[in-house]
Amino acid sequence: MLQLGSNRSAIRELFEQGKILKQKFGNDKVYDFSIGNPSVPAPNIVNDALKKLVNETDSIKLHGYTSAEGDLTVRQSIADYMNKKYNANASANLIYLTTGAAAALTISIKAIVSSESDEAIVFTPYFPEYYVFIKNANAKVVEVEPDLNTFYPDFDDFENKITKNTKIVIINSPNNPTGVFYNADVIKKLVEIVDKKQKEYNSDIYIISDEPYRELLYLDAEYPCINNYYNNSIITYSFSKSLSIPGERVGYILINEKCKDADSLFRAVAGAGRSMGFVCANTLFQYMIPEVLGKTSDFSIYIKNKNYLREKLTAIGYEVINPDGAFYMFVKSPIPDAIEFSKMALKYNLLLVPSDSFGIKGYVRISYCTSFDTVLNSITAFENLKKATENL
Amino acid sequence: MLQLGSNRSAIRELFEQGKILKQKFGNDKVYDFSIGNPSVPAPNIVNDALKKLVNETDSIKLHGYTSAEGDLTVRQSIADYMNKKYNANASANLIYLTTGAAAALTISIKAIVSSESDEAIVFTPYFPEYYVFIKNANAKVVEVEPDLNTFYPDFDDFENKITKNTKIVIINSPNNPTGVFYNADVIKKLVEIVDKKQKEYNSDIYIISDEPYRELLYLDAEYPCINNYYNNSIITYSFSKSLSIPGERVGYILINEKCKDADSLFRAVAGAGRSMGFVCANTLFQYMIPEVLGKTSDFSIYIKNKNYLREKLTAIGYEVINPDGAFYMFVKSPIPDAIEFSKMALKYNLLLVPSDSFGIKGYVRISYCTSFDTVLNSITAFENLKKATENL
Repeated sequence: MLQLGSNRSAIRELFEQGKILKQKFGNDKVYDFSIGNPSVPAPNIVNDALKKLVNETDSIKLHGYTSAEGDLTVRQSIADYMNKKYNANASANLIYLTTGAAAALTISIKAIVSSESDEAIVFTPYFPEYYVFIKNANAKVVEVEPDLNTFYPDFDDFENKITKNTKIVIINSPNNPTGVFYNADVIKKLVEIVDKKQKEYNSDIYIISDEPYRELLYLDAEYPCINNYYNNSIITYSFSKSLSIPGERVGYILINEKCKDADSLFRAVAGAGRSMGFVCANTLFQYMIPEVLGKTSDFSIYIKNKNYLREKLTAIGYEVINPDGAFYMFVKSPIPDAIEFSKMALKYNLLLVPSDSFGIKGYVRISYCTSFDTVLNSITAFENLKKATENL
Repeated sequence: MLQLGSNRSAIRELFEQGKILKQKFGNDKVYDFSIGNPSVPAPNIVNDALKKLVNETDSIKLHGYTSAEGDLTVRQSIADYMNKKYNANASANLIYLTTGAAAALTISIKAIVSSESDEAIVFTPYFPEYYVFIKNANAKVVEVEPDLNTFYPDFDDFENKITKNTKIVIINSPNNPTGVFYNADVIKKLVEIVDKKQKEYNSDIYIISDEPYRELLYLDAEYPCINNYYNNSIITYSFSKSLSIPGERVGYILINEKCKDADSLFRAVAGAGRSMGFVCANTLFQYMIPEVLGKTSDFSIYIKNKNYLREKLTAIGYEVINPDGAFYMFVKSPIPDAIEFSKMALKYNLLLVPSDSFGIKGYVRISYCTSFDTVLNSITAFENLKKATENL
């Protein structure tokens, strides 16, 4: 734990370094693309709902314990919404409210893992905390390579990596760190492989679909709900990004009704939450949920940032993976060592997260959930940085 | 995890059964003494602070991530308060904000434990989740017997149970489930033993003082702050009970400045929080903290309930441990088997938690954080229950 706490996540580390740079140079002179901290306000409905709840709800109900799994009315509202929107095989009694997606993941993983030989598959590049969360459950992390053209998983490598010990496959679309979106064809292909191997090993493989960026999709495409393609599936969700409220820590675990032994899995989820000290999700924010389902912040600034950055960085000569969603852009490092490149970038007050912590070398992640001014003012720094790499 | 989630805590189980009974018989016909859910409203300052924050704070700050350890200004306000009130050797950079005391405990325990042979000592009767939280960190639970006259720990048994593997001693005063308060003399005696054994084994033993009921003290006595008596100490705290906001999950870990390698321990705390998916405490409630430090709900109803219940139950013939704090009363079961007694009580719509889950046999816990009417109306049921045990 000391090691884990000392080696902060590379992202948080840069975020903290950014704070120091900002004190030194001023906020507008530091181009902080480090952390996925929404830069647009929550929609008004969030604060309106909070004020209404505070004004009109009895204090003991408003601030009291709910059942550990969350208030039943709130869970029902989520089930109804998910069924209407995605035909998601959702049931209130299989929804467990959490303090955000991170908790939803640690709880789900711990609920499924029962032996140290159990394996959880992640697709590189992946959100680095997946590694930490899988290790927390004492399971093994198995990394699958990407197809470097599409940044979808390399399906052959995926099939090869599934063993009799595979218990979990984590998917994340739109993706952090690449911004890549898995369309229905990709999901079908993934599921086909899992299904085949599950039958081959006569095992249960759970697909956990981590969907905090579900609503941040900049394509005119339907979001394929995993529960329509596969039975042993779990959706983990957070309202952090869709509503720009990441500090409020509210989300949920949704177990597919068609999941094998769904009720047992739900009880294991409750057990895992209990063991780690998650008593219930924050009650005030639980009660906010029915008021805000389907609502989002105004994401137009993200699209503007993405388009501008992509155009300018490409023009400067950077190789950019075109993002379809989330607020991340994956850019190939002009020099082989992305950590070195990230350090060089710091000299230009550019905070870019090297891809090494995402399980792949040679790229950096740009979180473009910033003001447009930050994007605009950063271009010269990106230009100078590129020149500096050419003069090495 | 399935087992842990299937066998809900006895307390939560009764709480859920109470819901069913209430639907059947009506709220006023069920005497629910099962759960420590504050029955008095939060002081007005809580909702006032929330509304002010929502009205006046920029959305991105109000709902955004803080550092994982919490907002520094908030942590400084806690350090200042604790130093002024308790001379607590508190420092902002050794305070870690959590989603309540449960999280504060799981994180602290996981931060300290490094081997499966590590032992954590609890004093029976104890809050049953301590067992779950210690097992979550893969450590061994070691139970110390109480002195049945005082319900302080049996100091001889305590000394005998400390081994070279002892890493943690958890103390909890005012106590859940007994309501007993450890005065300065008790703390001194405990610390003397730990200090002696720590020297004998040349080891580090951390005392975790779990203090959610610190302000619920009905004696005219100073609360002895562990940090004034012992160096390797950690305070875990929640605002749940003092402010009647248990659903909002906000509390903290405070590491004694004089703790050996305090900075390393703090980093281990950050690592443990990270591993379990605690990203940061709810930001809105973090910002509420400086506005409410030192404030409490009106506890006069608890005192009224306690005095009335104690008088009546004693008159009926129950043996009552006199509580000095919290909102719990420990009552000797008139029959040897407290689980059986709790089942009998259910027939009179009385929800009493058997002491078995607190690590001791033969008692029940009464949570008197109810309305006075519940207390008043329950007396006949207690009377009939007592008669029923006599007719067995």
